[in-house]
Amino acid sequence: MSRQQRAQIDAIMRRPRPEARTVAEMRAGFAASRATTTVPSGIRTTETTLGGRRALLVEPADRQRPGTILYLHGGAWALGSPETSLALTAHLVVRTGMRALSLDYRLAPENPFPAANHDTVAAYRALLDNGENPAGIAVVGDSAGGGLSVTSLLAARDEGLPMPAAVVAFSGGFDATLSAPSMDSKAGIDPLFTRESLGAALRMYCDGQDLRQPLLSPAISADFSGFPPMLLQAGTNEVLLDDSTRLASRAIGAGVDVILDVTADVPHAFQNFAGVLDEAGQALDLAAFFLTRHVVA
Amino acid sequence: MSRQQRAQIDAIMRRPRPEARTVAEMRAGFAASRATTTVPSGIRTTETTLGGRRALLVEPADRQRPGTILYLHGGAWALGSPETSLALTAHLVVRTGMRALSLDYRLAPENPFPAANHDTVAAYRALLDNGENPAGIAVVGDSAGGGLSVTSLLAARDEGLPMPAAVVAFSGGFDATLSAPSMDSKAGIDPLFTRESLGAALRMYCDGQDLRQPLLSPAISADFSGFPPMLLQAGTNEVLLDDSTRLASRAIGAGVDVILDVTADVPHAFQNFAGVLDEAGQALDLAAFFLTRHVVA
Repeated sequence: MSRQQRAQIDAIMRRPRPEARTVAEMRAGFAASRATTTVPSGIRTTETTLGGRRALLVEPADRQRPGTILYLHGGAWALGSPETSLALTAHLVVRTGMRALSLDYRLAPENPFPAANHDTVAAYRALLDNGENPAGIAVVGDSAGGGLSVTSLLAARDEGLPMPAAVVAFSGGFDATLSAPSMDSKAGIDPLFTRESLGAALRMYCDGQDLRQPLLSPAISADFSGFPPMLLQAGTNEVLLDDSTRLASRAIGAGVDVILDVTADVPHAFQNFAGVLDEAGQALDLAAFFLTRHVVA
Repeated sequence: MSRQQRAQIDAIMRRPRPEARTVAEMRAGFAASRATTTVPSGIRTTETTLGGRRALLVEPADRQRPGTILYLHGGAWALGSPETSLALTAHLVVRTGMRALSLDYRLAPENPFPAANHDTVAAYRALLDNGENPAGIAVVGDSAGGGLSVTSLLAARDEGLPMPAAVVAFSGGFDATLSAPSMDSKAGIDPLFTRESLGAALRMYCDGQDLRQPLLSPAISADFSGFPPMLLQAGTNEVLLDDSTRLASRAIGAGVDVILDVTADVPHAFQNFAGVLDEAGQALDLAAFFLTRHVVA
């Protein structure tokens, strides 16, 4: 069954899409593709603000457990919103009983680097200023948001803020130089991305910057001293695979507790296919296990 | 609390031990050191045989769940028995509700390579011949037994046997050439092993063999095609750390589902300290989560 599911997902992702020429068209296309993901029942959402930005509060309808997930959505730093990652956020909320705050951080090209990083650090700082115990917070993100979950904590640590209980990244983008070996070894196997398509998105976000700096390429240059336990999930059908494997190596070298969870034959951010793909639900189960283990508020 | 626990464990492991000159003395010393581990209550043990070798059947006293763990103890291929790994086996049985069969495979130097490998494959074959569904079996081991959990399945696959549901290795030894970078980078940090001490044990097990062959050094030469999901746990205070990180890379490259779980500042086979060290219990919890996820008999 599962091999069949994996092939089905691959076919869905390779479906021709309307060509997007403008950033607005790209954003609409991304939102439309994510609108096909299934948001689980058992949550309620409320508009709020966090650190001066719009945020979506996602709470479990029933079983509550202390703790807050700061969720950072994906979309190549230029697309997406709390709504386009709502299925992922909601799956974690339902599985853990914790609430989540999903941040509408500023996007490129209107707001290039380090705007998104500033917003995500400000959101984390706002949680602390609101009296949340850092041991009760986890920072979680997918894709570009996975990258931000890590880089926001690099910046927060360097600003002297205490670290949260845990960090989770689904198919995180951790290398703006696009030097991961999987950029070549998974070319063509990845149904969604190529080095060229990722490069175009990155030019919007970080044109003119030193791409090797830790806040853009943590997998190749960051010092992870003092980081909390980290869960990194990726699929083998993605050019971003080695962003996760290299970040894991680097964090292990810095004395961080790391779980690297690689699922074979699945694409970028495959957790979005929970309900269709068994491995998606299993990955989310592990993420929830990890979060409830570490978040103790 | 946890940092303190980690330092305490390190001090325990660095305690001077009586010098062992003969293999018999080494075996007695190893058994004595493992006798200090706490076997959880809630199990019952029965002597049995499996594939022509003595085995210890470890069953949960209460809650039962279908499925069988084939457990392979550690001890550098020359020491140990089902009894010296009973705490680890019992923790998994209690946490999963599954039964375990822990194998008393033949040891070096009396029985060098490939005797242990033959015995572990024979045990797996015997489970299948007894009518067990491979989807209901997981192969689990610590240290040298972690290595055997992987190499027994390489041999089983090559003999045409179906793969089990999952494989788990705690601080597995996966490279008889001792070429892992951590052999140097963790020298002195590892309170238990050095390249020299491991080399002496390996000479008993595989003197005169090609050390690079997959059944001795799977981390550097094995093809993992067709392998079931794999959980590899290791600590950063062990020279064997990169045996696990390199095996993970190799298995990911072959399209295997892999979870690499690295805990900082803990020594070899730290799961033995469950009850004293929080991280030991957490690692066993993850192993149990992984086993109950994959074993479906």
